[in-house]
Amino acid sequence: MGDLSAPAWQWDESTWRGLLRRVRAGRRLKPARWPGGARCAVALSFDCDHETHEMGLGGQNMGRLANLEFGRRAGLPRIVGVLARYGVPATFFEPAVCALIDPDEPLRLRDAGHEVGLHGWIHENNTLLSRDVERELMLRARDTLECILGAAPVGFRSASWDLSAHTIDLVRELGLRYDSSMMADDECYELLVEGKPSGVVEIPVDWVRDDAVYLLFHKAQAARPYVSPDEVLRIFIREFDAAYDEGGLCQLVMHPFVTGYRSRLFILDEFIRHAHARGHVWFATHAELATYVWHERESTASALGDKPHHVG
Amino acid sequence: MGDLSAPAWQWDESTWRGLLRRVRAGRRLKPARWPGGARCAVALSFDCDHETHEMGLGGQNMGRLANLEFGRRAGLPRIVGVLARYGVPATFFEPAVCALIDPDEPLRLRDAGHEVGLHGWIHENNTLLSRDVERELMLRARDTLECILGAAPVGFRSASWDLSAHTIDLVRELGLRYDSSMMADDECYELLVEGKPSGVVEIPVDWVRDDAVYLLFHKAQAARPYVSPDEVLRIFIREFDAAYDEGGLCQLVMHPFVTGYRSRLFILDEFIRHAHARGHVWFATHAELATYVWHERESTASALGDKPHHVG
Amino acid sequence: MGDLSAPAWQWDESTWRGLLRRVRAGRRLKPARWPGGARCAVALSFDCDHETHEMGLGGQNMGRLANLEFGRRAGLPRIVGVLARYGVPATFFEPAVCALIDPDEPLRLRDAGHEVGLHGWIHENNTLLSRDVERELMLRARDTLECILGAAPVGFRSASWDLSAHTIDLVRELGLRYDSSMMADDECYELLVEGKPSGVVEIPVDWVRDDAVYLLFHKAQAARPYVSPDEVLRIFIREFDAAYDEGGLCQLVMHPFVTGYRSRLFILDEFIRHAHARGHVWFATHAELATYVWHERESTASALGDKPHHVG
Amino acid sequence: MGDLSAPAWQWDESTWRGLLRRVRAGRRLKPARWPGGARCAVALSFDCDHETHEMGLGGQNMGRLANLEFGRRAGLPRIVGVLARYGVPATFFEPAVCALIDPDEPLRLRDAGHEVGLHGWIHENNTLLSRDVERELMLRARDTLECILGAAPVGFRSASWDLSAHTIDLVRELGLRYDSSMMADDECYELLVEGKPSGVVEIPVDWVRDDAVYLLFHKAQAARPYVSPDEVLRIFIREFDAAYDEGGLCQLVMHPFVTGYRSRLFILDEFIRHAHARGHVWFATHAELATYVWHERESTASALGDKPHHVG
Repeated sequence: MGDLSAPAWQWDESTWRGLLRRVRAGRRLKPARWPGGARCAVALSFDCDHETHEMGLGGQNMGRLANLEFGRRAGLPRIVGVLARYGVPATFFEPAVCALIDPDEPLRLRDAGHEVGLHGWIHENNTLLSRDVERELMLRARDTLECILGAAPVGFRSASWDLSAHTIDLVRELGLRYDSSMMADDECYELLVEGKPSGVVEIPVDWVRDDAVYLLFHKAQAARPYVSPDEVLRIFIREFDAAYDEGGLCQLVMHPFVTGYRSRLFILDEFIRHAHARGHVWFATHAELATYVWHERESTASALGDKPHHVG
Repeated sequence: MGDLSAPAWQWDESTWRGLLRRVRAGRRLKPARWPGGARCAVALSFDCDHETHEMGLGGQNMGRLANLEFGRRAGLPRIVGVLARYGVPATFFEPAVCALIDPDEPLRLRDAGHEVGLHGWIHENNTLLSRDVERELMLRARDTLECILGAAPVGFRSASWDLSAHTIDLVRELGLRYDSSMMADDECYELLVEGKPSGVVEIPVDWVRDDAVYLLFHKAQAARPYVSPDEVLRIFIREFDAAYDEGGLCQLVMHPFVTGYRSRLFILDEFIRHAHARGHVWFATHAELATYVWHERESTASALGDKPHHVG
Repeated sequence: MGDLSAPAWQWDESTWRGLLRRVRAGRRLKPARWPGGARCAVALSFDCDHETHEMGLGGQNMGRLANLEFGRRAGLPRIVGVLARYGVPATFFEPAVCALIDPDEPLRLRDAGHEVGLHGWIHENNTLLSRDVERELMLRARDTLECILGAAPVGFRSASWDLSAHTIDLVRELGLRYDSSMMADDECYELLVEGKPSGVVEIPVDWVRDDAVYLLFHKAQAARPYVSPDEVLRIFIREFDAAYDEGGLCQLVMHPFVTGYRSRLFILDEFIRHAHARGHVWFATHAELATYVWHERESTASALGDKPHHVG
Repeated sequence: MGDLSAPAWQWDESTWRGLLRRVRAGRRLKPARWPGGARCAVALSFDCDHETHEMGLGGQNMGRLANLEFGRRAGLPRIVGVLARYGVPATFFEPAVCALIDPDEPLRLRDAGHEVGLHGWIHENNTLLSRDVERELMLRARDTLECILGAAPVGFRSASWDLSAHTIDLVRELGLRYDSSMMADDECYELLVEGKPSGVVEIPVDWVRDDAVYLLFHKAQAARPYVSPDEVLRIFIREFDAAYDEGGLCQLVMHPFVTGYRSRLFILDEFIRHAHARGHVWFATHAELATYVWHERESTASALGDKPHHVG
């Protein structure tokens, strides 16, 4: 691969193809049917960054740490309460340091029927790390969650919603079933690494289906609540309705320190109510979803003999 | 405590725990009942930064100073008028320099039944100061308000909505009843400093319940009115309605140079009207609130023997 | 005056008082009655920056120059058409270079009954200039407009909506009747310079009543259309309604390259329609307004013997 | 021409006139009638930047590349589906590298009756290039598209919606019929280069009629979805309705990675539905539009003997 630090218009073909081949979307993992005859699947996730949202980048601002403590102390219990009221499972991605601050939190989440997923050590940006450091932090984070929960996590979401050139290899090394950091589709897909099927299921996130993009205030990053909570609900419902009509997946990301406010909790509540009202929806954790779509793909593949789609 | 200037993923456990222990939320101070059988409490506050919002950071822009003078000259009287119409008390946080520019202003506020709280000397950012300078400015600000008003203020709000490692110690040294700069809960709580109960009541603010986040224009800081005034009212009403249903506290922050406009004053007016319409609401100054929740906590604690909640 | 480059909390009293005294709001010029028994006054203004909005800060971007040429070519004629349909006069502030690019434009505006006001030479930021350069540019701009129009302009709006320490002195030297760059009130007022009444009427603008704050796109300045055109109309109408109820002034600022679009022109159209529907509104140019409020103030002053309000 | 690096207020007249003369709007190309007796024309365009939106500026972010791959993989097929359902043709501007990544894409677009236009080599910013490099990249991009499609493109849109001093000369050298990067009008016009008619038709874009301005999320550029999708539809419909009433052109720009989401696709769908409902609308590719307005202008010019409008 050529020199990526040169201006892009000087890159030769092997350079830009090499960049694209690092990680790419492979075969779409949209099952022909959902469990129990459901019309579509809903996978709710919550990034429980709490204090590490500030600390992970070296921030030491007391006001912001209190703002994030709100998520832990006030926001998360409310969110868990709404999920309990509707009997809906979800996946909570939690940096290991967050789990160490209050080890009861992941236990309560597990005991309420939710999944706890890997989300880095201290919400570090994995693209800034050497391969060795990235690997060391992923292993420590995995071990920490396993030690607290008695079972190892099966899925990973990058804290920065980004990947280094090594992340997916490490995901495989840890034996994880899925990654949930990329965005190349609405439906699950198999990740290609260097052009080859990785065996890792991608459950894609997207900024469009993320509460923080619309509602987070962060003074130093010039993030503001740009759109009203009512509009955010409307957007999420449009995402759901189209997924329902397509018989596909609707995946959302929320944060306790963003949606856990009294003036925003209705977004989650009314979203679930709307989905329930349409009926025949499979609410699944990310782990259940990854297992299901991978299994369905295996059946289909052996039945039809189709082969992965290569790009780049 | 280790080296906070290293990348966060290199911090050892004592380092990140040490950072978190500086200031942390302790026991929640949500009383079992509100005065007079009220269903919930509303604590309105107004940060009267006026010209110091520009000067405090060294700004000398004439246009911006005029924009802030608007708050003093046109915005504040309107706000006070609305409060008078409904007979609602509030707390006005005022930097000492603002009080010196027009000493009649805090007197008029006091005479109208409102509280005037400490808000720094010249709206300085307390996290940039040495302990000695921070202490000196807090003392001068306290003395200035006391000299004008004939009584010392009993509460403090940091101009930057942030704390240095020393602020709460200084709040205690000044014998203040409460701080109102942190954000770890919707309800009041006792601040923990270095893991120990401080005896200081925190009346939490939040960016979600602040008019400036949605409506302030500040060219150099790229702040813009991102959300319509109607949406801001809707958000504040949602905050109130949930507090009402929970039997809790609804605290708001507004600014004369933000909400004091003809096209925005209705936010305050209709918020109060809505609260009155629901009925049985205790409108209190921050000082009254702090005294009440602290007293209730003392009664409860002695009755139940419960102990503070430690974290970190 | 002390050292303004030191941190603000080190400024002594003469320093911050000296800064505030440069330009300050004096006596409010709100007349007891409006001409013809009108209930309130409306003063519409349009900043015709056109190409100088880019050139004034040294910008040479072809795309942006085309975007601004739109204001001249498509936006302004539409705006003038709406005003003509309702028979409403307005004030157009135009940098001299804009007038030189197409001298017919100010002539057409004048012939349609509108006022053309001073807006600098090339939309320069007056706070960056020495007194001599600022004076030279104001004189050249005045002479240019006078040469084209056959009469000298009588009012000034700073291109940067800001003043240097010398601007108001220069406004006086040029014999202008009013400035329209400051923001300390909703109503007109007399400017104080170094604590003394200047004899110059201020017709205040405000970011709240400016279309660009809500709707301008400027890639390099990270300005975006944050609020929908419908909301902007709603805000302007709220400003008008309150001015109507108070018997005061409603002043607006729009830009041909912001409001002159097909999807935004209705803001101006419906604003005027709304004002007409309420009835008894005095639509005035800024020059007419300044003359009227100054004359009324003189009558009142001699009748009541009141004296100017000093601050700082 | 003088020194453009000096402060603008020091530029002499030949300097600022010289800057303006580089590219300027000439004769308006609004035909007296539209084909088939249509009341107005609609020209839909889609900038298919895909991965080059990140790579063109040297970006190598995996998350962002996945976000853009979404446009290629999920967004574009949906958009093409909506156009097919209504039988509406459109123009897709595609950097050559995008076409090389999946050469079937431009072929499928062509086969569905759409136009594929030039959009640079790798979404490079043409204002940063020397004349030789800009020329080389335009030629390579043209050759690439011609090689894939079997016919050379006839129109160009600058990736940066900006022009260098040489771009329009190069557009002429390539024998293109139109440029679509400038913004000086709602209607087509002839570009003037150095004050002289260029023979190149400009089909103007505008930030007001661009989906990305309202809806794009780009972390590093602090772009956010500021306005709700419903408001964007309302803005586009207002643009259409006014064009319809004026008997003019309504041109839009969308991006597969912006509008191709489940929660946004309705913008395109309902826009077309609305236009169809009003009736008698000519949906044209940019190529068809450029040919038509140029031909009509030729007829009119020879009939009326009018001459181009010069400015600057």
